[in-house]
Amino acid sequence: MQELIDLIRQSGKVLPGNILKVDGFLNHQVSPVLMQHCGQELARRFQDAGVTRVWTVESSGIAPALMTALALGVPMIFARKHKSLTLTDDLYTADVYSYTKKVTNHISIAKRFVQPHDKILLVDDFLANGQAVNGMMEIAAQAGVQVVGAGIVIEKSFQPGGKELRQAGVRVESLAKIKSLAGGKVSFEEGEA
Amino acid sequence: MQELIDLIRQSGKVLPGNILKVDGFLNHQVSPVLMQHCGQELARRFQDAGVTRVWTVESSGIAPALMTALALGVPMIFARKHKSLTLTDDLYTADVYSYTKKVTNHISIAKRFVQPHDKILLVDDFLANGQAVNGMMEIAAQAGVQVVGAGIVIEKSFQPGGKELRQAGVRVESLAKIKSLAGGKVSFEEGEA
Repeated sequence: MQELIDLIRQSGKVLPGNILKVDGFLNHQVSPVLMQHCGQELARRFQDAGVTRVWTVESSGIAPALMTALALGVPMIFARKHKSLTLTDDLYTADVYSYTKKVTNHISIAKRFVQPHDKILLVDDFLANGQAVNGMMEIAAQAGVQVVGAGIVIEKSFQPGGKELRQAGVRVESLAKIKSLAGGKVSFEEGEA
Repeated sequence: MQELIDLIRQSGKVLPGNILKVDGFLNHQVSPVLMQHCGQELARRFQDAGVTRVWTVESSGIAPALMTALALGVPMIFARKHKSLTLTDDLYTADVYSYTKKVTNHISIAKRFVQPHDKILLVDDFLANGQAVNGMMEIAAQAGVQVVGAGIVIEKSFQPGGKELRQAGVRVESLAKIKSLAGGKVSFEEGEA
């Protein structure tokens, strides 16, 4: 998505450890108009998939997931992160390791908001190692519901998450695919401006 | 806002400790259409206030804050919660105690996203004891920027947060005001349906 790529070029900052900082429009300060356009574009790409619910993980996934769900006309659920979980009878749970923060979070979705016929679209701000998406896939497997794909704002395609998901047969749509952050320079995949 | 009040009546659950559970449409599963309507209504109430940015605190405030910012045509910032903070040179920070979770979080906003001329609208999903709003007010005071008011989805007006803010001269607009949860029954303020 050209508007997104232009914004990454203009204001994204590359930090040590292959971190792309986009906190001017995506995960601290947020551009509502950009989020609306991202949501509309992800909804367009999955418009024929019969999506019944959009899932994401708090916090940075909420804005793009909300706008995608609005455009698709379905509810959105954000999985909660917890350091520890005790009472889990009414929750589906999975572990998500954050490479950035070097911590394992448990994520959960309440069972009563999952229906047997659900067709889930997973949305997140970043796809790098795929931990958050894999955690949600695990919850979907526990619940026995279908995942129709993953809609991602920024994919770091030099990290293995996207490739592994596609090899496992998951449809992954990313609005910007970054092939390298080497030398502090953002390089996008071929075919992207 | 009638649509919101109807939804609270239909699917809100009262739990011990004066907790109103609205995780079917506000803070776990989220209704994007309801959030859009809440955002449009808060934007309408503050349309002449010259708002330049909407601030909220992750996670449950993000959805209504995003939609309010979209309707006002301004950026949204969600303050980050941390258990502890070490490097804070480039951050404004404040402490926020959660009565529900019985834990103090530090919240932070990056200094580079705050401009001297900013007129801030604070948005949150709930106003009860006012901790989150007060934390954001403290950050605004540190930064020397003006707060034009607080836009709240659900105010528990039997708890002191809203009253204290109004007494301090802060304009507070709440889309639903709950005067009591006694006996497990949700009672709204006079003038609300």
